Amino acid sequence: MSAFPSDPLNGGLVDFARRLRSGHISARAVTEAYLARIADLNPKLDAYTYVAEEQALRTADALDRLLSVGIDLGPLMGVPVAVKDLFSVSGMPTGAGSNLDLSDCIGAEGAFIDSLRKAGCVILGKTRTIEFAAGAQNIIHPTPWNPCDMDTHRTPGGSSNGSAVAVAAGLCGFAIGSDTGGSVRQPAALCGIVGLKTTYGIWPSDGIFPLCPSMDTVGLLTASASDASVAYAALTGNTVAPDAVLAGVRLGVPGPGCMESMDADVADRYEASLQLLEAAGVSLVPVSWPTQKEQQEIKAIYAGMVPADLLTTLGRDRFQNHRQDIDPVAVKRLEGGWDLQATEYIRLTRLQDKLATLAHERMQGLDGIVGPTVPLTPKPVKDVSESVSIASEFVARSLSYTRAANVYDMCAITIPVSEPVGGMPVGIQITCSANEEIRLLSLANAMSPIISTRID
Amino acid sequence: MSAFPSDPLNGGLVDFARRLRSGHISARAVTEAYLARIADLNPKLDAYTYVAEEQALRTADALDRLLSVGIDLGPLMGVPVAVKDLFSVSGMPTGAGSNLDLSDCIGAEGAFIDSLRKAGCVILGKTRTIEFAAGAQNIIHPTPWNPCDMDTHRTPGGSSNGSAVAVAAGLCGFAIGSDTGGSVRQPAALCGIVGLKTTYGIWPSDGIFPLCPSMDTVGLLTASASDASVAYAALTGNTVAPDAVLAGVRLGVPGPGCMESMDADVADRYEASLQLLEAAGVSLVPVSWPTQKEQQEIKAIYAGMVPADLLTTLGRDRFQNHRQDIDPVAVKRLEGGWDLQATEYIRLTRLQDKLATLAHERMQGLDGIVGPTVPLTPKPVKDVSESVSIASEFVARSLSYTRAANVYDMCAITIPVSEPVGGMPVGIQITCSANEEIRLLSLANAMSPIISTRID
Repeated sequence: MSAFPSDPLNGGLVDFARRLRSGHISARAVTEAYLARIADLNPKLDAYTYVAEEQALRTADALDRLLSVGIDLGPLMGVPVAVKDLFSVSGMPTGAGSNLDLSDCIGAEGAFIDSLRKAGCVILGKTRTIEFAAGAQNIIHPTPWNPCDMDTHRTPGGSSNGSAVAVAAGLCGFAIGSDTGGSVRQPAALCGIVGLKTTYGIWPSDGIFPLCPSMDTVGLLTASASDASVAYAALTGNTVAPDAVLAGVRLGVPGPGCMESMDADVADRYEASLQLLEAAGVSLVPVSWPTQKEQQEIKAIYAGMVPADLLTTLGRDRFQNHRQDIDPVAVKRLEGGWDLQATEYIRLTRLQDKLATLAHERMQGLDGIVGPTVPLTPKPVKDVSESVSIASEFVARSLSYTRAANVYDMCAITIPVSEPVGGMPVGIQITCSANEEIRLLSLANAMSPIISTRID
Repeated sequence: MSAFPSDPLNGGLVDFARRLRSGHISARAVTEAYLARIADLNPKLDAYTYVAEEQALRTADALDRLLSVGIDLGPLMGVPVAVKDLFSVSGMPTGAGSNLDLSDCIGAEGAFIDSLRKAGCVILGKTRTIEFAAGAQNIIHPTPWNPCDMDTHRTPGGSSNGSAVAVAAGLCGFAIGSDTGGSVRQPAALCGIVGLKTTYGIWPSDGIFPLCPSMDTVGLLTASASDASVAYAALTGNTVAPDAVLAGVRLGVPGPGCMESMDADVADRYEASLQLLEAAGVSLVPVSWPTQKEQQEIKAIYAGMVPADLLTTLGRDRFQNHRQDIDPVAVKRLEGGWDLQATEYIRLTRLQDKLATLAHERMQGLDGIVGPTVPLTPKPVKDVSESVSIASEFVARSLSYTRAANVYDMCAITIPVSEPVGGMPVGIQITCSANEEIRLLSLANAMSPIISTRID
């Protein structure tokens, strides 16, 4: 649930759907309420780069009329959503977080956004993204305000940071992001919400600016695991995942050496969560992967393969001619693709296939893997954007726990851990094998009330 | 049907299956007959690089015993087959046409060979391939003898040339090849037999030396379209494709400018075939693709993407250290991948996707495309292997009509055209959209008796 009590969907998607159908609320009213909150809070939070007020209200009216004549589009009907500005949406500009003209790299509105519309969602507008969705911190572009601390400007991470802030601050019912290395899960964890990264290929990628076409996935940012279940089910034609019975569930826990070091406050709450899970009957099985060598291989994939893909999309000439218009953090990243040989690129793509196969073999006998989502809590923006090297280091470290799921071609979710009073958000990541979203959401539903109970 | 009257399977697979079950022939007897023919003809033809005599006879005996107790493995039971030496087969060496040790590049026997065994095939041995399956002519490696001319040593093309010669000379029931740019269809056409290139992904590629993992396909070389239908159906669990009704069938015919120029004898027989098809009620629809630009793009894919993939498989160090052990035609080809940038490689892979999508859109309203398979008839080996540049030119020209089907991700087949007395083999290629093998084989079955009737 959102920390903002006046969030119009404070009771979650299931409650909203019931109130809509019982006539206690209308799509128009909830859309107006969100637009009012956006007008009020967005100047400070900077989650939205574009608000489609008129389009949203007209859509809401049409949906209310449709429901009044008995046509029900399902559980997401009338729900106002925010869309990462990496997705093409008809009637709205697409910037992909860049000052460059990228219209030739992004097609018309694609099938995923169309499925949102067919499900009856009201698109409120576009949310801020890290430039090209490449990384988690920019220097020349503004950083949205992480609503976990309204006094200090802390980073919400990235790249889907506008969507994460919009959900955390109650500026939409739920939000859409994309995840190529943690771009949904990492900002969700840093903002204290839920972020679902789906298996590659579950949702189509047309009409979305491509960062790395072989790993880009569409994801959902929601206030709760229940909302993620409802939205995932509605958008895929599945039934809502039931809560898993935790007694007897076997979750792998990466051992020492499988993760870069984490901050003490993250470690404390991760350990506390594991104890709560064990008390609930979960068997925690130590696993010894990714090995140190595999961690280096994953780094090499993000240092070589991803920049080469992005550089190909932009084109070498555009990159050279507009270097000064691109965020220097992205420039540094892109340079990793400039001199890369084809044979090295191919080696990395084959390495990814090999790692994915191996990881799926290792999942035999396990229901999933559990670990922290991000090794740190939200830092003040000034501390992570002082220089290109500091920002780059922050990006690499803050995404170091999420990239494996993309390389392994798995699905993963982050759910918030209970916070001590005044504490910063911490997320727990659950990872399941490819196409195991229902199992993943069942686990998240069952684990959420155990580890997410607010202490304040 | 094979031109060699004493071919034990002269009546085709259907006839053999009937004779086997009626007790007129045994798997042992047919295997012995092929082994005797191999002993007799292979010293001259050089189709097989390895003959697994003992293993084949033991397998045949076991299959005869199995059938005698009422266990019938289906239409391919007891059929002796030849396998291109690019496939790993348990108990047999794998050379991939090379003097290099490539054991680290090829896994254990894969799922496709396993499906041959489960279907009851008797594997006679391994057939010669162009080194790494890259191209159609080598200089330092021997070239099998094209049985279309027993007086002059003419090239059977490649890369699956041993398999093509084995089928054409009646040294096996049918043969297995691989096709990344025409390596099944081109030698099949040059040897006067049938060659089927399946859609990418229809059959698994594990245990096969990879040339270009995104375009490599397994294919069948058979004496007739009927045999291709029977073998394809048995190995995929489909029913045998019926003959198409040709009246009303719409086939695209590439117009002027869509193909490099062909030799006069090929043009004559291609034109004659088109007239026979029209007389049978086929509507021939002129198409204007691939355009000149697209032909250049296809060339760029084979000059850049394919060599880069192969070079990655071999490894840059192995290539550098063993350059003198590799056929100079392959060396020249591989050099095209040495300096290729990752961004250019990625551009080519995306170009391939784009061309495939476009080609499938253009197939709307057509049942297939018909054209010549190879622009030339079999040349004397000495004329095409005088120098690296002459051999390379022969490779590029002789594969220029077949590569589009690989780039477009389609399935295609070559069937022989009737030959004037003393004439050289000419093949007609039919191409259908991805996964349309049943339609493709139906067309081939219906067209074969019309255009393949022997005139001699």
